[in-house]
Amino acid sequence: MSESLIRVSEIFGPTIQGEGALIGQPTVFVRTGGCDYRCSWCDTLHAVDSSYRHDWHPMDAAGIFAEVERLSGGTPLTVSLSGGNPAIQPLGGLILLGREKGYRFGLETQGSLAKDWFADLDVLTLSPKPPSSGMEPDWDAFQDCIAAAGANTRLALKIVIFNEADYAFAKDAVARHPDLPVYLQPGNHTPAAPAEDDTTIDMDGIMERMRWLIGKVSADRWFDATVLPQLHTLIWGNLKGV
Amino acid sequence: MSESLIRVSEIFGPTIQGEGALIGQPTVFVRTGGCDYRCSWCDTLHAVDSSYRHDWHPMDAAGIFAEVERLSGGTPLTVSLSGGNPAIQPLGGLILLGREKGYRFGLETQGSLAKDWFADLDVLTLSPKPPSSGMEPDWDAFQDCIAAAGANTRLALKIVIFNEADYAFAKDAVARHPDLPVYLQPGNHTPAAPAEDDTTIDMDGIMERMRWLIGKVSADRWFDATVLPQLHTLIWGNLKGV
Repeated sequence: MSESLIRVSEIFGPTIQGEGALIGQPTVFVRTGGCDYRCSWCDTLHAVDSSYRHDWHPMDAAGIFAEVERLSGGTPLTVSLSGGNPAIQPLGGLILLGREKGYRFGLETQGSLAKDWFADLDVLTLSPKPPSSGMEPDWDAFQDCIAAAGANTRLALKIVIFNEADYAFAKDAVARHPDLPVYLQPGNHTPAAPAEDDTTIDMDGIMERMRWLIGKVSADRWFDATVLPQLHTLIWGNLKGV
Repeated sequence: MSESLIRVSEIFGPTIQGEGALIGQPTVFVRTGGCDYRCSWCDTLHAVDSSYRHDWHPMDAAGIFAEVERLSGGTPLTVSLSGGNPAIQPLGGLILLGREKGYRFGLETQGSLAKDWFADLDVLTLSPKPPSSGMEPDWDAFQDCIAAAGANTRLALKIVIFNEADYAFAKDAVARHPDLPVYLQPGNHTPAAPAEDDTTIDMDGIMERMRWLIGKVSADRWFDATVLPQLHTLIWGNLKGV
């Protein structure tokens, strides 16, 4: 595969951004294939596990942006770059191409890999993975991501929380990066469901963790945290393409 | 009742703000009693209908703020002033008292009554009522609210949408006030439930309207709208005090 080609798992929208700093805002998603992590509760395995690699299409920036323009009818909006870990892919050219036409770009990554083109994003969401994921953050690489984003990219910290250990991890992450606005998101135990007809979700579990998280944050007077569920999961389940 | 006394329906929290511009942020609610509107689908009748007036307590600013401080453990946060229509009440003193201690204030009102002290708020959410409410907005009074807020108060437009007529109303409201960020919120048909044990909600209806609204906004390329449900309703139903 040429170095300038991007491995695309799916492009879909417009829909709303379901989580974090841009929750509720209309967006088109560009989901790339491939990830350097294997989180135990990954909800997008179809963009992570290499057994799905035959569903990932190598596309160049012009081809991806043409599809974004088609879906959005040529009206600029925020494009959400997601994965997998989209930082693996050469997305700099796509971002420049879109910005020329007035599109904005948000990207979410675990913060394991810094890229110069983070500076061209509007919003960079860094989502270090908590203990329940089975992964271990590399805080030096994380710091490199913040440095790469620079002064013109809005930063947000988003942490998925399943349990007390994850909550303690979130507190530690915020202590390391007190200047970043933090979004806490209750974990979702629903198995990843690439099947188009699987809308069964762990709604009770998500809501129970939501109530628990709000209680924790309130008791700790952690008033600069924002607590938000994944809206898309509540609205559509783990369905793909919405 | 003295002119400086505030009619309080309930003070509760910390919990999260469930809707609009501050969604997910920890807050203490001060809900005042009394309203100049009677929306057909009102979900807080216990703070609107005068048959509940014996549950409303006249309190002064110091008494209310003492309770806010107690609930928040003296750690500043955003206080949500809600109702009923809180603009009816003399809240200017409470806001000044809180700001001295580092607290911030958000207020939501239909925009029927402008007050000088809107300028001391951090966020003023104006929620003009759509046709399904049975009410008619007074756009002159609405404009007075914007003027009263001035340059230092962040403004947001929030519109509840049940149907096509409400959606058209939202488009008209935005055409009148193109500079305001707009939040569209699917209507909630759940009957107001002041009873503490009623957690039955119209979840399917809310989610159906959420999907419909996202589809409308996408088809119309209305990409600067933000579409958000009432999170507190999804989490707790129409329970009071959360």
